[in-house]
Amino acid sequence: MDIALLGGTGDIGEGLALRWAYHTSHTVIVGSRDAERADNKAEEYATELDSRGVDSDIDGAENAAAAARADVVVAAVPAYHLTDTVEAVADELDDGDVLVSPAVGMKRDEEGMHYNRPGAGSVTALAAGAAPDDVAVVGAFHNLAADRLANLDADLDVDTLIVGDDEDAVETVSALAEGVEGLRAVSAGGIANAAEVEGLTPLLINIAMNNEGMHDVGVKFH
Amino acid sequence: MDIALLGGTGDIGEGLALRWAYHTSHTVIVGSRDAERADNKAEEYATELDSRGVDSDIDGAENAAAAARADVVVAAVPAYHLTDTVEAVADELDDGDVLVSPAVGMKRDEEGMHYNRPGAGSVTALAAGAAPDDVAVVGAFHNLAADRLANLDADLDVDTLIVGDDEDAVETVSALAEGVEGLRAVSAGGIANAAEVEGLTPLLINIAMNNEGMHDVGVKFH
Repeated sequence: MDIALLGGTGDIGEGLALRWAYHTSHTVIVGSRDAERADNKAEEYATELDSRGVDSDIDGAENAAAAARADVVVAAVPAYHLTDTVEAVADELDDGDVLVSPAVGMKRDEEGMHYNRPGAGSVTALAAGAAPDDVAVVGAFHNLAADRLANLDADLDVDTLIVGDDEDAVETVSALAEGVEGLRAVSAGGIANAAEVEGLTPLLINIAMNNEGMHDVGVKFH
Repeated sequence: MDIALLGGTGDIGEGLALRWAYHTSHTVIVGSRDAERADNKAEEYATELDSRGVDSDIDGAENAAAAARADVVVAAVPAYHLTDTVEAVADELDDGDVLVSPAVGMKRDEEGMHYNRPGAGSVTALAAGAAPDDVAVVGAFHNLAADRLANLDADLDVDTLIVGDDEDAVETVSALAEGVEGLRAVSAGGIANAAEVEGLTPLLINIAMNNEGMHDVGVKFH
């Protein structure tokens, strides 16, 4: 499968790119608004994988070109860039493509991080609003600590929550998630339930801030 | 330590009463608006513990009488009864007592459960507003599946999140939590962070609804 990571030069994009390239045979296309930056990052990731003896399949491309080549497009950008980013690639999203939204809107105060719920109800709902009607949107990968994900020496052994209204798309993204060793996909229902999923991310940051040894904390449901 | 469970005849109250009586030597006072109902439930819990060979220390009392006897008072009532319940016992709360709030405001729609954030910012903040100024308020035990908690044959092996602005009170409640076998207390910071903690409860319910074998799902952070 061909996976585009829009904003794939950022921290969560880096982690997903490295993990998919390391643990699976999918093609990863690192997207950026700047094609040269995308190429450089793709080369950097490929070098890291090569050093581990993995012959990876990673390219760089400008976001729209990356989206054009992919079956699954992950909008790995901050919440405040999400709508612009999705609209910029909308013409390249085909019927049957899946758009994945891992972004969470947060605000920080002196006590910690807080969920900043968008008017649309959730960031995933924002993504669904910005995407063409024939593109299924799935929320996933919100609750993964970026450093732990990008560190291929770190055992993950964590869950990621999946929300979506299109069963096939949810199945596709769940399978992509579970292709990563130590990552389990757990369904949280439809996009109407995305706010509770996104709200877990500031909670994890608050836990990391308040407990020793929990810097890159993840979650397991059981 | 003497622990009062206001609304201790309800499902989360039952679980906490049984667990503390089973795993610790604390005195548990089951509170209810109706003293006779409290007595009956206390007797029912004591009978169950006796059948397991545990000589428990459980009494029943009307809520205010229960609060008067306790060092730690747990408001194990639904969110919409919280303010009334706390105000009804306020005269019995002494300087140095700790009030614990496990309640979560939720609303259900056709997709699942959603966090219903009170105007005060969180249910824990509501409790803090209703309590006398010299009583420390701690949010805890929101994210425990009541049936799993009340089933003394079930291994817990889960975490509960603790929020509070008074360090001593947080320490007291964390120690009470960890007195229960298989329960770990994890700090999420101050009461300003309580909304993200309370929002985990509807998420757990949505996970239970959408995944086989996760009926009484709990959470571990690591």
